[in-house]
Amino acid sequence: MRQEWIDRRGGDACVTQMHYARQGCATEEMAYVAEREQIPLEVVVDEVARGRMVIPANINHPELEPMAIGIAAQCKVNANIGNSAVTSDVDNEIAKLETAVTLGADTVMDLSTGGNINGIRESILRRSPVPIGTVPVYQAVQGVDSVTDLTEDDLVRVVEGQAEQGVDYMTIHCGIRLEHLPLIDGRITGIVSRGGSLMAQWMVHHRRENPFYTAYDRILEVCRRHDVTLSLGDSLRPGCIHDACDDAQFAELDTLGELTRRAWDQDVQVMVEGPGHVPMDKIAMNVERQQRVCDEAPFYVLGPLVTDIAPGYDHITSAIGAALAGWAGASMLCYVTPKEHLGLPDVNDVRQGVVAYKIAAHAADIARHRPGVRDRDDELSRARFKFDWRRQFELSLDPETAQRMHDETLPEEYFKSAEFCSMCGPKFCSMQISQTVEEYNRTRREEEAGAATA
Amino acid sequence: MRQEWIDRRGGDACVTQMHYARQGCATEEMAYVAEREQIPLEVVVDEVARGRMVIPANINHPELEPMAIGIAAQCKVNANIGNSAVTSDVDNEIAKLETAVTLGADTVMDLSTGGNINGIRESILRRSPVPIGTVPVYQAVQGVDSVTDLTEDDLVRVVEGQAEQGVDYMTIHCGIRLEHLPLIDGRITGIVSRGGSLMAQWMVHHRRENPFYTAYDRILEVCRRHDVTLSLGDSLRPGCIHDACDDAQFAELDTLGELTRRAWDQDVQVMVEGPGHVPMDKIAMNVERQQRVCDEAPFYVLGPLVTDIAPGYDHITSAIGAALAGWAGASMLCYVTPKEHLGLPDVNDVRQGVVAYKIAAHAADIARHRPGVRDRDDELSRARFKFDWRRQFELSLDPETAQRMHDETLPEEYFKSAEFCSMCGPKFCSMQISQTVEEYNRTRREEEAGAATA
Repeated sequence: MRQEWIDRRGGDACVTQMHYARQGCATEEMAYVAEREQIPLEVVVDEVARGRMVIPANINHPELEPMAIGIAAQCKVNANIGNSAVTSDVDNEIAKLETAVTLGADTVMDLSTGGNINGIRESILRRSPVPIGTVPVYQAVQGVDSVTDLTEDDLVRVVEGQAEQGVDYMTIHCGIRLEHLPLIDGRITGIVSRGGSLMAQWMVHHRRENPFYTAYDRILEVCRRHDVTLSLGDSLRPGCIHDACDDAQFAELDTLGELTRRAWDQDVQVMVEGPGHVPMDKIAMNVERQQRVCDEAPFYVLGPLVTDIAPGYDHITSAIGAALAGWAGASMLCYVTPKEHLGLPDVNDVRQGVVAYKIAAHAADIARHRPGVRDRDDELSRARFKFDWRRQFELSLDPETAQRMHDETLPEEYFKSAEFCSMCGPKFCSMQISQTVEEYNRTRREEEAGAATA
Repeated sequence: MRQEWIDRRGGDACVTQMHYARQGCATEEMAYVAEREQIPLEVVVDEVARGRMVIPANINHPELEPMAIGIAAQCKVNANIGNSAVTSDVDNEIAKLETAVTLGADTVMDLSTGGNINGIRESILRRSPVPIGTVPVYQAVQGVDSVTDLTEDDLVRVVEGQAEQGVDYMTIHCGIRLEHLPLIDGRITGIVSRGGSLMAQWMVHHRRENPFYTAYDRILEVCRRHDVTLSLGDSLRPGCIHDACDDAQFAELDTLGELTRRAWDQDVQVMVEGPGHVPMDKIAMNVERQQRVCDEAPFYVLGPLVTDIAPGYDHITSAIGAALAGWAGASMLCYVTPKEHLGLPDVNDVRQGVVAYKIAAHAADIARHRPGVRDRDDELSRARFKFDWRRQFELSLDPETAQRMHDETLPEEYFKSAEFCSMCGPKFCSMQISQTVEEYNRTRREEEAGAATA
C-alpha cells in the first residue's frame, strides 16, 4: 500500500514526515498512525511538526506499516536482532524478526556485525512491516582493519547506502566528543556503547573530533532525501549503577540536545537514546532531564537496568527500569534479553525480551492513564473469573506460553473449561467461591428491598 | 545453636521477641539479626519493641537462623512452596525448599493444600534455616467436607498444632468481615485470596462474623506461648488492575490496623499482607496508606502485578510492582512465579520466582540508599570490566544460570578469560576499547603535567 503514497510525493527534495507536517500537510503515514493510536490526525501532524513524535518511515521501505514514537502515542518496544562475528546466520535472524514482530515488537534493530551484513539487512527489510533501525558504524568497520582507518566520507557513504536500502532509523554516535573523553575517568565500566567506543578509539588515535560530529550536516542531508529518522546514540551511557548520572553522561546529553535542534532545522526527524544502568530513584530524573535538554524529542531508552547483579536475568532487571522510564515519559523501550552481558540472544531469548518489554510498556501506559489501554487487562480478568481459559490465553501477551504452562499439569481438553487450575485445585478456587458470595450479596439486596416495601 | 537460647528462656509465659524487646532485653536472636543486617543491636531492640520489625522465630523451630523483616532491615523475599490436591509430593517440596533457600529466599511459606500436609510441613521445618510460614485454614478444611463445617475451636486447634510443630509465622484471614462482603460488588474478579474466599464462604453460609475474627484473642494467646508471628492476610486484595484500591480493600485494611494494635497489646509480633494487582502509579500510595493505618507494622506484599495481560510471565509483571513497593517501604516481597494463574510451580518456576524477587528487593534497597548494598553491584561490574568471567558468575544472583548462558556459545575453558563474549565478538568489545581510552587519558594528563612544569 505504501508504495503508492511514496510515488505520489516523488520529486520532492525533502521527503521527511516532519517536512510535510510543518507545511500542515497530513500524509497517509500520519493518517495511518492516527488510526492505529486512536488519536486525532491533527494531533499527529502537530506532534510530528513539533518534533515530539517521529514516524520512522524511509521512502525505500514500502513494506512498512507506519507507526509512531512519541509521548502522545502508546509506549513502544524495540527488539535488537543481528548476528555477531562469532555466531548466527540469515535464517536465524529472520526467525528472530518474525518472533519479535509476532509478539508485538514495534520496531526492530538489525545490529549485525559480521558475515554478509548487507544481505541480512536486505532480507530483514523486505520482510518487515515494522521500522528497521541500524547502527551504521558496525558496517563501516567491517571494510577496514581498524576503525581508525575510516574517514568522514566512508561513514557518510555507509549511511547513504543503508538509507537507499530502506533503513528507517539509524543510531549515529555523533554526541561523544573529544572533550568528553577525560570525563570517563573514575568510571568502573568506562564506555559500554559499542559504537561509542569505536568513535572514542578513532578520536584517541587521531586526536581529532568525532567524524560523525563533523560530518553531521552531510548526514542530515542524506536523512532529508530518504526520510531516515536519526536516533542519537548515547555513547557515554553508564554501564553499571556506579557510573549512572555522571558528568560524562550529561555532557554528552547536552551535545545531543544541540544535535536535535540542528536536525530539526533541516526537518529531519530525531529521537534521543538513553541509559543503560540507573538506580530506580534516578530514572524519572533522567527522563525529565533529557526532555528538558532535548526540547522533548522522543526518548528511546535501553532498559535501564536497576541493578548489576543478575546476569542471566537482565530482561527482568531492565524491565523494571524500563517500566519506570515509560511511566516517566520515555517513548520507546529498547529491550534487553536474558543473554545480555553473556552472549548473543537466540530466538527464545528474543521471545523473553520482547514479552518482558511489552509488559513494561503496557504497565507504563496504564500508569500514565492512556485512554482505553486497560481494556485488555479488564477483558482478560473477566475471562479469568469466568474460567474461560481459551479466551484468557488469546488475550495474553504470549498465548502459546500461557497455554503450555497451563497444560503442563492439566493437558486434557476437559480442563479448558474446568473451574480451577492445578495451582489451587478444585477445592480451593477462590474465584469459584467468589461467585457464591456475589449470589449472597444479590439475595441480601433482594431481602432488604423486600423488607423496605413490606 | 538456637536450642540453647530457647532453653535458657524456658518457663516464661510469653516468649515473643517483642515481649523481651519491650523489657529492654536483647535476645540472642536480636543479636544475630543485628550482625546479619549490620545495624546496631539497640536499633533492633527498639524496632522490635515498637512493632516496626519482626523476627519470626517460633521456639519450636531450633533449626532457624534468625532474620528480621522491617523497614530498618534490608528488603526481604518470601517463596511459596507446597503441593495442591492435584499435584506434587514431599520430595518435590524439599527440592523447592532447597532451591529457594540456595538462591536467597529469606522465608518460605508451605502452602500445601492436599495429601500429607503435616508430614510435608514437618520435613520442611526440620530442614529449614529460614522462617517457615503457613496458612492454617488450608489444613483446617482438609478434615471436613466443607469450610462451613468448621468451628472456632477447629481453627484454633489447627493454629495451635502448627505452632507446636514450629511454624514461625501464619497467615490468618481475620480481617475480612461480614460487613465487607457487599463491598466486592462491582469487582471483576471478586475475592482472589484462597483463605479469604473460604472465610467468606463460611460467613455467607452462617450469616455470622468471621470465626478467625471472633477467635482472635485465643489465637493471640497461642502466638504468645510459641512466638508465632502473625501475618494478617488481606482477603480482599484486588485480583486485577480494575479492582485495585477499592472500598473493599481499604475497609479490610482498617480492620487489619485494629488487629495489629490488638496483637501488640499482647506482645505478639505482627506483619500485614498487601496486594496483589496494582497499577504502578498507585503502589507508593498503597504502601503509605498501610503504614499509616497499621502504625508502621511491616508490610508484606504479594507482587503487586502491574498488568493482568501476561500469564506465563507474572514473575516479571509482579517483580516490577514489588520493586516499587520495596522502594516505597514494603519490608518483604512475596514472590510470584511464572506459573501464577496457570498451575502449581515446579522447581524451575521456584528458581525464576526467587531470582526475579531478589532483583526487586535489591533494586529497592539500592533506591532506598541502604548503606553498603551497592557494593556487590560495583564488585560485579569491576569483574565484568576486567573480563573476569568466573568472578562475575560468582557474584551473580544465579551463578549457574549465568555461566550456562555464557557457555552456550563459548563453552571452551579458554573463553573464561577471553576479553569478549559472543554478544559482540572480539572486534566490538566496548570494554576492551574503553581500556585504551583510559590509557589515552593517562597519557594526556601526563603531557599536560609535563607542559605545565616545562
